[in-house]
Amino acid sequence: MAKKLIGPSTRLFPMPTLLVCVKTGENAANIITIAWGGIAGGSPPLIGIAVGKNHFSTPYLRKEGNFTINIPNSRQDVEADYCGIVSGTRDPDKAKTCGFTLAPSTKITSPLIAECPMNFECKLYKELDFKGLYLFLGEVVETHIDEAVLDEHGRIVTEKLDPLVFLPNGEYRKIGDFVSKAFSVGRKLSKPQVSPD
Amino acid sequence: MAKKLIGPSTRLFPMPTLLVCVKTGENAANIITIAWGGIAGGSPPLIGIAVGKNHFSTPYLRKEGNFTINIPNSRQDVEADYCGIVSGTRDPDKAKTCGFTLAPSTKITSPLIAECPMNFECKLYKELDFKGLYLFLGEVVETHIDEAVLDEHGRIVTEKLDPLVFLPNGEYRKIGDFVSKAFSVGRKLSKPQVSPD
Repeated sequence: MAKKLIGPSTRLFPMPTLLVCVKTGENAANIITIAWGGIAGGSPPLIGIAVGKNHFSTPYLRKEGNFTINIPNSRQDVEADYCGIVSGTRDPDKAKTCGFTLAPSTKITSPLIAECPMNFECKLYKELDFKGLYLFLGEVVETHIDEAVLDEHGRIVTEKLDPLVFLPNGEYRKIGDFVSKAFSVGRKLSKPQVSPD
Repeated sequence: MAKKLIGPSTRLFPMPTLLVCVKTGENAANIITIAWGGIAGGSPPLIGIAVGKNHFSTPYLRKEGNFTINIPNSRQDVEADYCGIVSGTRDPDKAKTCGFTLAPSTKITSPLIAECPMNFECKLYKELDFKGLYLFLGEVVETHIDEAVLDEHGRIVTEKLDPLVFLPNGEYRKIGDFVSKAFSVGRKLSKPQVSPD
């Protein structure tokens, strides 16, 4: 298997599509789309997002000290992309442009996007200052899931959630075919355990 | 859209499947599977991984100060799952069990997994100490891509790369249908610009 070396890069496959919403004023909020992020801790639950210092949302994220992370489905690709390519300076009401409803959170001041099937309310837990961006670690204080994406046992049905996937070759994708069950399929390779008897 | 509140959680959709490989001795290395991670910075390129303090790999990651992140394809699901559910204490040569070839990196001491279509060589850039885990931020110093997943222009073809996706409802998935082009499809919502003329 011949490999091509491309030097330092950020081309991780896959990435999430995170709509980060932060309060920017009385009854005003901005939405920014972030693919540079992921789970950063479990106790407390942390989501990390890397946000450019010169983005419109950045001073509000630092000042307000909280934000929501909203997971769009694959039919919200136009809106997700719009929130990533247009600055809040040019469009101070992206929610309206996108036809999104900003609904109050339960534990923080920044609102959530009602139409997104999953929403995480996050309190700013830690901020790391890197060249050109901040890595914000948000503590997840509440999680909202659209009841329509749950089965009768309250479990998330992947095809109903239908989360929008971002790939660093510039593609939005759907989640694809089921491959196997995690924490299970790998047992095939486990060596037989010696019985204590 | 009625929402169910489930409290603080880490149920982000989607997550990557990262095979983290670290040198553990002369001609020895361990592989651990991590879904809690993502891009954490761009200059330098950083990948964050959250690793439990009591994992076999953890002291080696701290001592060696480098690791590789290897992206498995969807046919490597059994191996990826195995490396996540079996400790290096029980199997000190998971690469052999998985049929993986450990190949030398170009800039760090930890080896990479030759059979994985993408590999990132990372130097430990920063370590954050959280309850129960460390968040390791790795600076990507080199990226390897299997030439077989590139098109004639050197671009990554998603279906050829075929990265394994982890979902927190316990499923491994493939990447699915193309939805739209990022940094492009959102222009549909842009308001017409006033011409300066």
